[in-house]
Amino acid sequence: MKKCLFLSVFVLFSAILTGQELQNSRSTQVVSPEIQDGRVTFRISAPNAQSVSLIGDVMRGLDITAQSVDMVKDENGIWSYTSAPMPSDLYTYSFMVDGVRTIDPNNVYVNRDVATVTSMFIVGNGIGDLYTVNKVPHGTVIKTWYQSPNTVDATVRRLTIYTPPGYETSGQSYPVLYLLHGTGGDEEAWITQGRTAQILDNLIAQGRAAPMIVVMTNGNVNYEAAPGESSLGLHIPIMRPPRYKDGTFELTFPDIIRFVEHSFRVKADKANRAIAGLSMGGYHTMHISRYHPNTFDYMGLFSAAILPPEVQSPVYENIVPTLQTQSRNGYKLYWIAMGTADHLYQSGIDFRKQLDDIGMTYTYRESEGGHTWTNWRLYLTEFVPLLFK
Amino acid sequence: MKKCLFLSVFVLFSAILTGQELQNSRSTQVVSPEIQDGRVTFRISAPNAQSVSLIGDVMRGLDITAQSVDMVKDENGIWSYTSAPMPSDLYTYSFMVDGVRTIDPNNVYVNRDVATVTSMFIVGNGIGDLYTVNKVPHGTVIKTWYQSPNTVDATVRRLTIYTPPGYETSGQSYPVLYLLHGTGGDEEAWITQGRTAQILDNLIAQGRAAPMIVVMTNGNVNYEAAPGESSLGLHIPIMRPPRYKDGTFELTFPDIIRFVEHSFRVKADKANRAIAGLSMGGYHTMHISRYHPNTFDYMGLFSAAILPPEVQSPVYENIVPTLQTQSRNGYKLYWIAMGTADHLYQSGIDFRKQLDDIGMTYTYRESEGGHTWTNWRLYLTEFVPLLFK
Repeated sequence: MKKCLFLSVFVLFSAILTGQELQNSRSTQVVSPEIQDGRVTFRISAPNAQSVSLIGDVMRGLDITAQSVDMVKDENGIWSYTSAPMPSDLYTYSFMVDGVRTIDPNNVYVNRDVATVTSMFIVGNGIGDLYTVNKVPHGTVIKTWYQSPNTVDATVRRLTIYTPPGYETSGQSYPVLYLLHGTGGDEEAWITQGRTAQILDNLIAQGRAAPMIVVMTNGNVNYEAAPGESSLGLHIPIMRPPRYKDGTFELTFPDIIRFVEHSFRVKADKANRAIAGLSMGGYHTMHISRYHPNTFDYMGLFSAAILPPEVQSPVYENIVPTLQTQSRNGYKLYWIAMGTADHLYQSGIDFRKQLDDIGMTYTYRESEGGHTWTNWRLYLTEFVPLLFK
Repeated sequence: MKKCLFLSVFVLFSAILTGQELQNSRSTQVVSPEIQDGRVTFRISAPNAQSVSLIGDVMRGLDITAQSVDMVKDENGIWSYTSAPMPSDLYTYSFMVDGVRTIDPNNVYVNRDVATVTSMFIVGNGIGDLYTVNKVPHGTVIKTWYQSPNTVDATVRRLTIYTPPGYETSGQSYPVLYLLHGTGGDEEAWITQGRTAQILDNLIAQGRAAPMIVVMTNGNVNYEAAPGESSLGLHIPIMRPPRYKDGTFELTFPDIIRFVEHSFRVKADKANRAIAGLSMGGYHTMHISRYHPNTFDYMGLFSAAILPPEVQSPVYENIVPTLQTQSRNGYKLYWIAMGTADHLYQSGIDFRKQLDDIGMTYTYRESEGGHTWTNWRLYLTEFVPLLFK
């Protein structure tokens, strides 16, 4: 737990030494969150507030049936709540102060999920340790741009790329996992919320994963890049941007492969390519891997949104025959994961029946929980060790 | 202004399609900030609040004499404030809601300065355009790790590196600017608050800067990396960590140069090395550039904290003689910038007198304002065009 302990600090000299002279509201004597043996204490100073509660993804670790828990005020105006021991995981949360949602002002670690910024923490001694920066060799994280001339709106597009520890000096070539986000996400999603660099560093250090390159794409073809990283300026991310799931991302996916195989030392064959995605990224994974036959030996569909295409595209024609072709061509792994509480659970049943009907083999992993980053991080930790063995 | 306009959106499907089911407090109908012709409107829904005010760095653009401005509540419980036209720049701000500091819940763009997370926006049509992602060729941003065996506490340390547009394919070698943060900062500071990638992309596109590599270091030698990126876990950043300015960073700086010149295609000579830093980074720049003679042809001291060393180190012996040696060896540029309102203004006068006394040449740039990122971003836009010409 030591790593997760938030230290009580008093920030000296900040008034004169940083550009924060006017931020006279720092309450650095409040420690929040404080984690001890899995029990988490949340605190916020709000002497004038009538009610303060804790909300967010954190409720999964507190009380799955409730949407919030009330916090209690002490004589100094500090509201607090201490949990029972929480399962090891990464959690996000906000405070509701008299109806206004706020991050924890004493926790600098924030997380953006689509258009919501929340506070975050990790409870260790379990799966959370895989999401933690440990004293292991670290890979490199790269934000770069590739040409994609047929996406029309955004012909230069941003990618996040993880190269494994030692890439710079080994002279070796590596296999590649292409990792796709869901609706509302972008090329930042897997590296921030998904903890991809930490998961890969830790699994590689434990000898459980082959050293590999991971390419995190942006599946919104009308955007160059994540919010704030594109020439759209500081626009607000939305769940369904224009040209959402219109087939263009699948059609132009070879632009990404071409860029990666030209710019990095990779093993450029089917046996050394994997593709996986969450929700819409699972939909993209299914379509890309059958539309570009014999390209990938490993597919991962995490809580995949395998729903009927909403627009016409050459990509969405002949779905069943191309799945049959993909099946005949063969592959090493078609891995499908779904949470029992996922709103897409039934569509998963329907999709697997479709695969069964044509004799297409797959591995099915059912977890608890729903359509959450908790599951998507977990699935990544389980999928990556199955690759390139 | 179009780029800066925050769009009014209603986020469809977020309740079912993301891990945000429990975040029932989204108020996405509120648009904040909204920027039109430089006038900025800030809004927050807080029907139960007794008082809401706007605070932070934004006050520089509103009323430099005040610490906050009051916001006014409408009949729907939405508090707002509209500014007069603000000078083009990047601004950060927070709301104070009944005494509790919060980010703007409707603005996903946040900025961490040491241990404070604030909201941010850019006013264009001026210097702010250099901080904006424009439709120009983009460089690549890399987070990687170098070996520094003599730093004792953290022998593998993190760097942020910018490579210019075309680096991957040009086959050319590039000059290098080493760019150093101030107290409380880390290897994230210049790439986030400093807008280094945007400034370089834009200056290079305008033909005002030579294509160069920029290496953003972490000057806190007892830390491997920025908060959240090291094995310390999610610790709270402080202004004066242990071994603050103890000479080790200066002593071990050649580890960084060695790593960069081994891992990237660089022109590895004095004429193609620059070093610059803000506040403590200016102090580091002064000491590194004289202690390692004939290494850099360009020095930049931005609001430099040239104060007496607080601890003993071989680095801090013979300061004047080594400055004289540096002067005799020659260099292209020793650029000193300071704001007239900086609390270090007098120490800047003292340092320049010291240089005058030994006949050491420098260029002096005095700006308005104080010890702020507003100035440090400005200085970077002015310093970079002077390099490698």
